[in-house]
Amino acid sequence: MSINKNIRQLTKVRKEYSTSEILKGILSRDITFLSIAITLVESSRFDDKQKAHEIIDACLPYSGKSKRIGITGVPGVGKSTFIESFGQYLIKEKNKKVAVLAVDPSSNRNKGSILGDKTRMETLSNLEGAFIRPSPSMGSLGGVSKATRETIILCEAAGFDTILIETVGVGQSEVEVKSMVDFFLLLMLAGAGDELQGIKRGIMEMADLLVINKAEGENLKPARRARTEYKNALHLFPATTSGWIPKVETCSALEASNIDLVYNITLQYFNLIEKNGFFEKQRKGQALEWFRKALEHEIIQQFMQNESNKIRSKALEKLVIEGKRSPFSAVDELIKNAN
Amino acid sequence: MSINKNIRQLTKVRKEYSTSEILKGILSRDITFLSIAITLVESSRFDDKQKAHEIIDACLPYSGKSKRIGITGVPGVGKSTFIESFGQYLIKEKNKKVAVLAVDPSSNRNKGSILGDKTRMETLSNLEGAFIRPSPSMGSLGGVSKATRETIILCEAAGFDTILIETVGVGQSEVEVKSMVDFFLLLMLAGAGDELQGIKRGIMEMADLLVINKAEGENLKPARRARTEYKNALHLFPATTSGWIPKVETCSALEASNIDLVYNITLQYFNLIEKNGFFEKQRKGQALEWFRKALEHEIIQQFMQNESNKIRSKALEKLVIEGKRSPFSAVDELIKNAN
Repeated sequence: MSINKNIRQLTKVRKEYSTSEILKGILSRDITFLSIAITLVESSRFDDKQKAHEIIDACLPYSGKSKRIGITGVPGVGKSTFIESFGQYLIKEKNKKVAVLAVDPSSNRNKGSILGDKTRMETLSNLEGAFIRPSPSMGSLGGVSKATRETIILCEAAGFDTILIETVGVGQSEVEVKSMVDFFLLLMLAGAGDELQGIKRGIMEMADLLVINKAEGENLKPARRARTEYKNALHLFPATTSGWIPKVETCSALEASNIDLVYNITLQYFNLIEKNGFFEKQRKGQALEWFRKALEHEIIQQFMQNESNKIRSKALEKLVIEGKRSPFSAVDELIKNAN
Repeated sequence: MSINKNIRQLTKVRKEYSTSEILKGILSRDITFLSIAITLVESSRFDDKQKAHEIIDACLPYSGKSKRIGITGVPGVGKSTFIESFGQYLIKEKNKKVAVLAVDPSSNRNKGSILGDKTRMETLSNLEGAFIRPSPSMGSLGGVSKATRETIILCEAAGFDTILIETVGVGQSEVEVKSMVDFFLLLMLAGAGDELQGIKRGIMEMADLLVINKAEGENLKPARRARTEYKNALHLFPATTSGWIPKVETCSALEASNIDLVYNITLQYFNLIEKNGFFEKQRKGQALEWFRKALEHEIIQQFMQNESNKIRSKALEKLVIEGKRSPFSAVDELIKNAN
């Protein structure tokens, strides 16, 4: 098993397989068929979509049993190195099967922040038991996270028991990722001055675990100091709905130190939420939320795909911004004369 | 001018006035006509709505010049007392005209948390230059905040230069209020243990000013300690998009101490954002956001008002929660066969 380097080729051949062949391949844990199915999920073609939905619905009974872990942090914090270390630990020490996915809304792939530079996870990607899938390069954030969510189902059906979802800690993508994972890990750095520089407001509050990375050499002391500082800050926030009290730890992904500690914390967390029912509750809530959001998105799409609606909406937007129409009377007019 | 005690009576007579009569009344700063217009805005009747939209659109050129200030805090924090003190200061010392509105999504009015107990603002409500309007008791949060937003326009056209919008600091209503004000003030109390108890996550991050209320007598010391603690916590957050660094102060609404300080901070803030263009930018952004949200809301309403769509949606929701359908394939099916 290794990172799939032949997506284009798979795209060409995917039509040769029926949905039942692809399904059978996935359930027999064949990575090639998993990749074919993901490519279908990421496709914007109508017939591919239909096929993808059939496969996903058939995979559903075999899905849902993994631990879904979101990992975020600003570029430079060491996400790839952390996932490399953490993934290796899970596979080698804990006999897990690990899929690594990415949610990255940025169209500019040159930043290389997310799984772009595959070589950065070379050791992990060559391990038996690892599957690394770069972020789909298509479309809007909503589209990317829809594909990611469906990919989770496929990976679980293919036997992966741990799904790591990587995202950049600077935008809306965290909220999307939060809504598809069980556990949310925020990687940070100890730094002079404003410790949270670059991290969007609200991200810290979503974290179940803050890990100060690069706690090595001369940086060990500042990292420990940062840990205390964050612990105090987190203390000011009320308890999460999971009943879990967010933790702060240091680690060095480079030296693979404290990786076991991070793993043990995830264990504690999952033990807690499986016992108190939050695991089940959150999963159900997430599914319902995705259904409702996707439905609303589609309903609005249908409306806006109508050229006349679109043009009239744009014209009214302009009047609203200029203060010449109230938002609500503008909406009334638009809806009344909608196509 | 005083709090309007005759809404029911106004409802009866509102049909006797034409929109142009009501408009003329508002622009001549007649509170009776302002109240009639607000009652139209809060009405769910189709013809009232039409009339309200006409009036609001006609008021728009005369609106937008007030300072819109959101005030939130958990029940018991002293919101009413604070608004009473702050409002009196604004009117008596600064010669302002102050309208007090409320956004309160709770249907249970017995809590008396928001403007319910009118007597709590008796002094303010009897002042020339004050207008206090209780929260509309109808409908959903979205409906309440829509009415509040339109009421702001009406109050501004009627010559009010300061709009105070009160809300309870425990839910979604703060996000709504944040999207209709220029400045957001969070009232808090010094307390033992977890200082943020009861305040929803994320609310603190929205505040431009935190005020520790009840800094009086024996509570003075704990209040000052809390101020330091919050200052340190706020320091961890990155700068707001306004360029403003959120402040923390203590006050005693009861003894009317530090009320001038709070006022001076709002002045500093408005000076800054008028200079750096954020005032204009935020207002335009808010209008556009409201238009888009209201449009999306209406489009979805139209879809769900269809009985068959509604029934099928509920059935699919169930399958999604049970893990028998993927959210996205369920949506596809629903949209494909929509009415």
